[in-house]
Amino acid sequence: MDTVDEARLRSDLEANATFGAVDADEGNGRTVLTGTDANRDARDRLVDRMANAGLDVRIDAVGNIRGRWTPPSAAPDAAPIATGSHLDSVPQGGIFDGPLGVYAGLEAVRAMQDAELTPDCPIDVVCFTEEEGSRFGDGLLGSSVAAGERTVDDALAMTDREGTSLREALNRIGYQGEGQLDATDWDAWLELHIEQDTQLETADCQAGVVTTITGITHCDVTIEGEPNHAGATPMDDRTDALAAASECILDVERAANECVATAGDAAVGTVGSMELSPNATNVVPGRASLGVDIRAVDADTIDTLCDRVHDSLARIERDRGVETTFERPFDVPPAPMSDRVQTALSAAADDAGVGSLSLHSGAAHDTMHVARCTDAGLLFAPSDGGYSHSPLEWTGWEDCAAATDVLAGVIASLSDTAAR
Amino acid sequence: MDTVDEARLRSDLEANATFGAVDADEGNGRTVLTGTDANRDARDRLVDRMANAGLDVRIDAVGNIRGRWTPPSAAPDAAPIATGSHLDSVPQGGIFDGPLGVYAGLEAVRAMQDAELTPDCPIDVVCFTEEEGSRFGDGLLGSSVAAGERTVDDALAMTDREGTSLREALNRIGYQGEGQLDATDWDAWLELHIEQDTQLETADCQAGVVTTITGITHCDVTIEGEPNHAGATPMDDRTDALAAASECILDVERAANECVATAGDAAVGTVGSMELSPNATNVVPGRASLGVDIRAVDADTIDTLCDRVHDSLARIERDRGVETTFERPFDVPPAPMSDRVQTALSAAADDAGVGSLSLHSGAAHDTMHVARCTDAGLLFAPSDGGYSHSPLEWTGWEDCAAATDVLAGVIASLSDTAAR
Repeated sequence: MDTVDEARLRSDLEANATFGAVDADEGNGRTVLTGTDANRDARDRLVDRMANAGLDVRIDAVGNIRGRWTPPSAAPDAAPIATGSHLDSVPQGGIFDGPLGVYAGLEAVRAMQDAELTPDCPIDVVCFTEEEGSRFGDGLLGSSVAAGERTVDDALAMTDREGTSLREALNRIGYQGEGQLDATDWDAWLELHIEQDTQLETADCQAGVVTTITGITHCDVTIEGEPNHAGATPMDDRTDALAAASECILDVERAANECVATAGDAAVGTVGSMELSPNATNVVPGRASLGVDIRAVDADTIDTLCDRVHDSLARIERDRGVETTFERPFDVPPAPMSDRVQTALSAAADDAGVGSLSLHSGAAHDTMHVARCTDAGLLFAPSDGGYSHSPLEWTGWEDCAAATDVLAGVIASLSDTAAR
Repeated sequence: MDTVDEARLRSDLEANATFGAVDADEGNGRTVLTGTDANRDARDRLVDRMANAGLDVRIDAVGNIRGRWTPPSAAPDAAPIATGSHLDSVPQGGIFDGPLGVYAGLEAVRAMQDAELTPDCPIDVVCFTEEEGSRFGDGLLGSSVAAGERTVDDALAMTDREGTSLREALNRIGYQGEGQLDATDWDAWLELHIEQDTQLETADCQAGVVTTITGITHCDVTIEGEPNHAGATPMDDRTDALAAASECILDVERAANECVATAGDAAVGTVGSMELSPNATNVVPGRASLGVDIRAVDADTIDTLCDRVHDSLARIERDRGVETTFERPFDVPPAPMSDRVQTALSAAADDAGVGSLSLHSGAAHDTMHVARCTDAGLLFAPSDGGYSHSPLEWTGWEDCAAATDVLAGVIASLSDTAAR
């Protein structure tokens, strides 16, 4: 087939980048939280572009957008090949994380149309709601509903920090539709996303074929000491929650480093957030709450790292007299990608003359949920310098186009029954 | 002289505790920030009680309140003996920290009047503005102006987090007066305050005679790493500001412990506050800002501890690739109390039959500033369990009265020229 139209893809991504654009010292940032005006504008433009390409557009009950191309060549009742990503962003996020996969999917369809291909099934282009979890929940929200792991009602009842529900937020922007996108309807699923690391850049490859998306566990840890006067409380008479938390933070780092060193396993452990109370310079900290993020390709490694957090808390309870709690509120197991789709992706890269590399994804993606319902694949485009969730995030237009070529190629091959 | 009236003192303190009272699970709390309605109500009642005792009340330009008792026996132009403390509190603070010293001063005057004493000089009862620094500045604000260490204009121009100036806040409640309280006018100064630690309780003494108020340094430390995706950034490719900060926090604790162990010095080091950015569980922390509180009886020890913070930062810069900054925005040197006043306090305790103990103060007090202008003394009453800056703060009414007896006795002796 002909290659995709780089200028058309770029024009879509640049137009999308204007919604929620933020002033950044360097780079191009945007803040597009679910249900905001910026999110409505971004959705409106996507729907318009989908309709312009002849796609039949539906909005489901949780705001997932699906544009379907049903070519005359499609067999009646043939299961579609689906592709897509998301349009929401983290606060001050980049312009490629999400939108590249959505507009690359649309561009792949347009390229297939331009090339007058005759696929044997419909092609669905999808935009999932609230992938980032920046306003509602922990992320991957729309795909969790499409995969049947969360009910529509549960999703719509979720609230942001101000108590606004997802239902209200979607209604406000006119994107609370009907029905429910069902990932089990698809013959296969593909997501193109930026890598958010530097393996492709280092290897000088334009396409990454993901083998597994690492599992993610979030742990909520609290450490309770005794708040007291920083001047009047002698060193040997204090129970300092922050000093205790510091030991735990270093234990998490050490445990992850040891997993990588000894098991050669792709594992990371991060204490990314902390709330301190009373958080005054002249008061011995009484309470620290930590948000711990643990990820690994292997589910056992995640359990091992959680055990290490437990061990650390037991030690600081013993050594420092603090009281601690540990919860594991968010747990997504590792998601291996389908062999069928991985093979097709590598072949499509070869056909397009694009260098490819097999690698795992340390970041979570909607594809984790979809992978439980159908054959799923995740394709990475390079990230300059690995910057992500930042205005510094960047993927060159040629790299975008090359990865979209691979995406179009794999959709063409998977939708061509005769080629199987 | 007769002893003070415990019921009258208790009634004053209980009435004062109603202003800004907070609901606490346990204990009796109050939030009285400078310039709030609660602060106005507390000031109004004090002024009323002072006037009721025949004191001449003046409000100075920064809201310091001074009630002067000039007995007929006072020599013309005799320098007053002054005593007092503050009525503002930290958020969710206790009911004795500050008010005890103010109302004990007033009660001492009333007890001297009841006993028909004939002091040779006036007695000033003082309430300083913004001792806690919970709304404007770092604390000890009114006394810094009275000691000539800060100009009235500089003080009035200070702003809270919302940008409201002290001038506006005092004007709003009708307490921006005229002139300037001048601590050099006083022959001697005394402050009664709760201990905020357990030395008196442990020794079963009702009066603490402070030898030195420890110096205080606040250091502002920033640690700059690289914010990055917690999943997509391998352990060996991250510059985690929170992990680096954790090493620094433990270094501060270790350094203070070593000062205590090796030099036998009364020293404390606390990291009491931290701001983390971006502070999201799934992002490697990019920036940590720490508020460090260092105190010691000896100024050299404070410098040594600051050097240890420097050393720690240099090490984490070297080992972890972070960038750090260090500032020392708040520095009050140790304040030794006057020998004359310490001797008089010990004698007054003996005369009153109250057990006393010499000790240092780890907490800062307005007396630190006044001590540079005149002979100053600080008297402690016991704190049950040492709780402070908390609704759990408590000093029994008998303990309050016993310490006030000592205060009245020392004021009587210092104001009796013939007794010198």
